[in-house]
Amino acid sequence: MSQAPAAEVITIGDELLRGEIVDSNKSFLSERLLGLDIETRWHASVLDDPNDMIDAFRRASERSRFVLVSGGLGPTRDDLTAQVLGEAFGRKLVLDEAALETIRAFFRAVGREMTENNASQAWFPQGAEILPNPIGTAPGFMLVENDTCFFCMPGVPRELYRMMDEQVLPRIAARCGGGRVVRSALLRTFGMGESTLDAELAGIATSGDVSLGFRTSFPDNYLRPVARADTAEAAEAALAAVCSEIRERLGALVYAEGDETLDGVVARLLREQGKTVAVAESCTGGLIAERFTAAPGASEYFLGGIVAYANPIKTSLLGVSEELIAEWGAVSEPVARAMAEGVRARFGADYAIATTGISGPGGGSEAKPVGTVHVALAEAGHTHCEHFVFPLDRTRHRQLTAQIGLDWVRRVLLGEELVGPTLLRRQGGAAPPAKTGAMGDDGRVGH
Amino acid sequence: MSQAPAAEVITIGDELLRGEIVDSNKSFLSERLLGLDIETRWHASVLDDPNDMIDAFRRASERSRFVLVSGGLGPTRDDLTAQVLGEAFGRKLVLDEAALETIRAFFRAVGREMTENNASQAWFPQGAEILPNPIGTAPGFMLVENDTCFFCMPGVPRELYRMMDEQVLPRIAARCGGGRVVRSALLRTFGMGESTLDAELAGIATSGDVSLGFRTSFPDNYLRPVARADTAEAAEAALAAVCSEIRERLGALVYAEGDETLDGVVARLLREQGKTVAVAESCTGGLIAERFTAAPGASEYFLGGIVAYANPIKTSLLGVSEELIAEWGAVSEPVARAMAEGVRARFGADYAIATTGISGPGGGSEAKPVGTVHVALAEAGHTHCEHFVFPLDRTRHRQLTAQIGLDWVRRVLLGEELVGPTLLRRQGGAAPPAKTGAMGDDGRVGH
Repeated sequence: MSQAPAAEVITIGDELLRGEIVDSNKSFLSERLLGLDIETRWHASVLDDPNDMIDAFRRASERSRFVLVSGGLGPTRDDLTAQVLGEAFGRKLVLDEAALETIRAFFRAVGREMTENNASQAWFPQGAEILPNPIGTAPGFMLVENDTCFFCMPGVPRELYRMMDEQVLPRIAARCGGGRVVRSALLRTFGMGESTLDAELAGIATSGDVSLGFRTSFPDNYLRPVARADTAEAAEAALAAVCSEIRERLGALVYAEGDETLDGVVARLLREQGKTVAVAESCTGGLIAERFTAAPGASEYFLGGIVAYANPIKTSLLGVSEELIAEWGAVSEPVARAMAEGVRARFGADYAIATTGISGPGGGSEAKPVGTVHVALAEAGHTHCEHFVFPLDRTRHRQLTAQIGLDWVRRVLLGEELVGPTLLRRQGGAAPPAKTGAMGDDGRVGH
Repeated sequence: MSQAPAAEVITIGDELLRGEIVDSNKSFLSERLLGLDIETRWHASVLDDPNDMIDAFRRASERSRFVLVSGGLGPTRDDLTAQVLGEAFGRKLVLDEAALETIRAFFRAVGREMTENNASQAWFPQGAEILPNPIGTAPGFMLVENDTCFFCMPGVPRELYRMMDEQVLPRIAARCGGGRVVRSALLRTFGMGESTLDAELAGIATSGDVSLGFRTSFPDNYLRPVARADTAEAAEAALAAVCSEIRERLGALVYAEGDETLDGVVARLLREQGKTVAVAESCTGGLIAERFTAAPGASEYFLGGIVAYANPIKTSLLGVSEELIAEWGAVSEPVARAMAEGVRARFGADYAIATTGISGPGGGSEAKPVGTVHVALAEAGHTHCEHFVFPLDRTRHRQLTAQIGLDWVRRVLLGEELVGPTLLRRQGGAAPPAKTGAMGDDGRVGH
């Protein structure tokens, strides 16, 4: 094996090869391995067919230090991973009494009857180390064959995610780097492009023991600092130091760490501060409301919203005056402000977000090109509004606009400045847009 | 090779193995192959590394009749597919003058300068047949090596999709079944479970020359009839016959054929009939509005909506009386009806959809368990409402509820009966739900 250990991911299941589902387990597992600075060299998927599975396992043992296997641990006759992996390397299956008892306890706890098939999930290749599955019936296992470690996990994503993070990654970290300990973090940022971030963070994590990875997940950028040391304490201290230096330089651009999403942060802050929010959406068309209400319990802080696609609705339901629309057009800063203030008053919310823009592909003009958008956030006594032009396709234009709205709610709750993203060309919010002088925006603009 | 030709999909690119993107090309290609009744046995992904690529190509040539390769056709130094595939099988690269001219013309048409690198995209392994790419600079190619056909396509999804359908599938069909012609269709259905569909279609497509596949893409079910014959005319006639028999038995359950989505059908029908729609969403929280407005030009038929998450908003903005909410609760048939009628009147729309329910996981009671939902569609002089209990997680509960609303707009525009799905346990819409007798549903219900 080379000094940089190579990893391989094998996913098993007929449904993958029929194209019925998009296999996201592979990218999840590879992304997590990268967090330990381990490169995945191969992804393979095979049918629930013993010959194909044996072939894949044996090849993996010849070329990879770590092999992550997903699927084939269930209770049905199609679930062959333990049996076939044993067969591939001449190992008998043996019953693990502790695993059997855990499965029994699981069924008792949920009040369901345990079948003979479920008992088959307690048989593992000789020498396997069992990996507990606290949220499902199928335990995973680790099997070491010469220089290769196989980690077999369930195919159900939420069970796989948890087993990977809690059971597999610590074992891989312990085996890497001659006993050196590896720790990594994920910092989520919104509002700055990757190359600018890179420049802002110049000089950070340049020692051999600390590295910094970048990843774009539109419209966000993620940072992945990784620290290596001889002890867990030293690795954790080095990681904490680099995270704190990143946060110091980037400030509020870092919106969360680990698995928390922007929507999750906003929901948490609103709940903690006992504040409420409402939305008035034109170009985002319900996307922001949908994101708020995707979370259980959203009614504690999300009062509702108005999707004001037609201009008369902006007038009748949001109280935006006809004159204002006639003078400035529906896609304008004054209208965005009036929408935010109107929906805030009508819903009695602490904060209100409004969006109006031209997501395209049609509807643009010279004065207001496709990509133009105004975002406003109203609070008691003050409304902030900015004007952007994002040359993006319709879907991304809407996504980015919604993200700005949500990020502004986070920023206002943290007492941070409301700034828009610099990741794309931005036009100054200060200069007023040209007046249209007529009902130029006929209600189709922005749609 | 066995009588059922095996296929393999190889996707190439470092970004796949870093887990940066979820690789949906594989499932797309396998799903399309299944349309010709060809089973994909292997999925593999490799880095932009010549050794790993050669290894993958050689193994594929030993075991697969058809090998679909995606990625590595671009103009950069990382794009190695043509060169490495040639190397794997001892073929020189040769310049294809026609391809070079096409690339030149592409750059002229978009007004960009062509670089030396782009010219590299006109070099192919000796013996390759070029596959045109009308929407990008990278042509694909077919290479036959012994019994194996390689089809190399760009990794950009929209270019890949088009090349697969227009160039690759007809070539594969021509090579399958001893010169027999294969034709397939995709019929999209909503509202009936897979086993019920199977029973409804008993006796259809049971000859050896016509087969029928099923696939679930929640909340829809897709049917894939496949016909084989000696001539294209005969295959097309057999396919048309089976499609027409399916449509006769299923009626309006089939909402579209081919690539058209439910949202697309609804938009087309609204536009064709010059009708408008508005929405009042409680439990779907903006999801229906977001789906309407995702399509360019939606302002022609979509007027807007109200996300009425808090009860006072149902009263102040939708005109649902406080007494009605007090008597029946926010999650009730009378409130759903009043919401639909209220939003229809306020927006001046031809049709209005309303949803109110308990998507969970919390908020249920014995009388109104988690999963309860009322969907209403209001038109001039009539409002239709149904009551369901769907034991699904929050995300799927919202998805299914939104789908019913959109499907009802389709049905009302087609003059079809408004029926709910039978794919899940449904409670009769006739029996009125129990009165709450108080403000029992305190605004959190349904959220």
